[in-house]
Amino acid sequence: MRKTIIGVMGAGDSATDKDNKDAFELGKLISQEGWVVLSGGRNSGVMDAVNQGAKSVGGLTVGILPYGDNDKTSSAVDIPVLTNMMSARNNINVLSSDIVIACGHIESGTLSEIALAIKNKKSLILINNELDTKEFLQRVAGDNIEFVSSPQEAIDICKDMLLKQKT
Amino acid sequence: MRKTIIGVMGAGDSATDKDNKDAFELGKLISQEGWVVLSGGRNSGVMDAVNQGAKSVGGLTVGILPYGDNDKTSSAVDIPVLTNMMSARNNINVLSSDIVIACGHIESGTLSEIALAIKNKKSLILINNELDTKEFLQRVAGDNIEFVSSPQEAIDICKDMLLKQKT
Amino acid sequence: MRKTIIGVMGAGDSATDKDNKDAFELGKLISQEGWVVLSGGRNSGVMDAVNQGAKSVGGLTVGILPYGDNDKTSSAVDIPVLTNMMSARNNINVLSSDIVIACGHIESGTLSEIALAIKNKKSLILINNELDTKEFLQRVAGDNIEFVSSPQEAIDICKDMLLKQKT
Amino acid sequence: MRKTIIGVMGAGDSATDKDNKDAFELGKLISQEGWVVLSGGRNSGVMDAVNQGAKSVGGLTVGILPYGDNDKTSSAVDIPVLTNMMSARNNINVLSSDIVIACGHIESGTLSEIALAIKNKKSLILINNELDTKEFLQRVAGDNIEFVSSPQEAIDICKDMLLKQKT
Repeated sequence: MRKTIIGVMGAGDSATDKDNKDAFELGKLISQEGWVVLSGGRNSGVMDAVNQGAKSVGGLTVGILPYGDNDKTSSAVDIPVLTNMMSARNNINVLSSDIVIACGHIESGTLSEIALAIKNKKSLILINNELDTKEFLQRVAGDNIEFVSSPQEAIDICKDMLLKQKT
Repeated sequence: MRKTIIGVMGAGDSATDKDNKDAFELGKLISQEGWVVLSGGRNSGVMDAVNQGAKSVGGLTVGILPYGDNDKTSSAVDIPVLTNMMSARNNINVLSSDIVIACGHIESGTLSEIALAIKNKKSLILINNELDTKEFLQRVAGDNIEFVSSPQEAIDICKDMLLKQKT
Repeated sequence: MRKTIIGVMGAGDSATDKDNKDAFELGKLISQEGWVVLSGGRNSGVMDAVNQGAKSVGGLTVGILPYGDNDKTSSAVDIPVLTNMMSARNNINVLSSDIVIACGHIESGTLSEIALAIKNKKSLILINNELDTKEFLQRVAGDNIEFVSSPQEAIDICKDMLLKQKT
Repeated sequence: MRKTIIGVMGAGDSATDKDNKDAFELGKLISQEGWVVLSGGRNSGVMDAVNQGAKSVGGLTVGILPYGDNDKTSSAVDIPVLTNMMSARNNINVLSSDIVIACGHIESGTLSEIALAIKNKKSLILINNELDTKEFLQRVAGDNIEFVSSPQEAIDICKDMLLKQKT
């Protein structure tokens, strides 16, 4: 009965309008596939937007919070997992996701999750078109990374990746 | 949209038949209230039984696994959270639960979760009638602990506790 | 060049004068054997006293802190390890110790460390004479636990345990 | 009595000869300043080399291991801290260091530590001359990062950074 879980990582307070718009759309599309949205769970930036998008179409949302209580949990998280271990929880975000999608510009927290996804050999997609980001991360990741321009493209690649994981 | 989460802790391989029977019943009753079952997530003992009980009536189940993959995850866990941090994850089990219920005889893993529940001032119920357990833990916990004899009694107390938490 | 590490666990603010006196003495005796003192590292109760005792005779002290900075670190800790993961760090305290000694009356944090020591099959000594504590914990631990009345007795048993660990 | 702790991060099995040579030299230089060397603690690559360098001049070495036992601990680690939490321990490496130095080519584990150092606003030095690495990471880090070409240059900058931290 294990559900498919898609982890969406991205900036909090420093998220741009485009980052948030993409994240909302991504949450919607993931939920429409019947997959669970997993995120860092905070009420800020990409984390909040992806959960709001998921709930706008009745999806199921899991947040892996850095804190020990729900004071800063997104109102669109159904199941908050309270770790109280700050950024050490980033490894849990990655491990618990069948696929990791990094959405938008990359700040330090998201970069750590991208690095940990590579380390743990997780399927990894970036919605990002910065050229130097691409060059640098492809060198670190080898073939284990996909770059796309839109949420819809990310979903299409997810389907391929999930098929491959099952075989 | 945050759901109510009831954490059920108990023995793995060393669980008795009675422990497992109580855990199955507990999973059923929790789910029938519309609450989420959270557990250590392994395919063994109380962890497996409480999830199987929940799924027998269509409940929603979250497992906080000590491992980094799903090789030993209960087949009745919907959402496995993979921590790869072994017993350090016990603190997450407790923090993420609105109420913690320890079900059955107490071995070392469960005892650590009871202790962490007390430490984190969580509402705590034990389905357990061992006299020396009661005396010792009541001294450590002060008033913060309830002892009951059956899953149904635990559910009744949960309702009171949840009402108090909301006020 | 690995050093022998003795972990000393005990109450913080709720420590009694006797707990602190025993902890200071224990820190002194451990250091005089050339062993490293490991503790929870806070500037309070048993954690502070055992480090002060160790430094009074020039010992080496490691603190595994629950926090991400040194604001509440004991002034007698040489090497603070900053985990920022609150009580989840208790498992690290136990794993990193060749022997775990619980010193004084048992509150919830110490109880979780005792339980995790049993779980991880660590050599475990309690300086504690409460009868119900002894009965309850011996049932959980099986043979894996020793009860003593004084720091000096704890040191004597440590020597035996370390000899056995090496063979 | 708190000691100054310099964290050195770098590749394990994929470390190049130059990475290991720089790490050995770095361990030596750090120890000659009277500072403690902190690392990931494994018996491989940069982690092993920096500890061997430190011990070659009688330094003190702390390893924060991903594992729960010492089977893969560098023989030159004096104090192994056993976390048993795999890559989630990377955040502890960073938090516990007064300064973080990344030594050599950057693979995924080291990249996560660089990202977490930026996230936690730690003083951060890279011994690395890859141009795209520099451009990408400077964008993520803002001013919070220094690039140098040799261990000796890293030590010189450490002295400046430590002076600033104290004022």
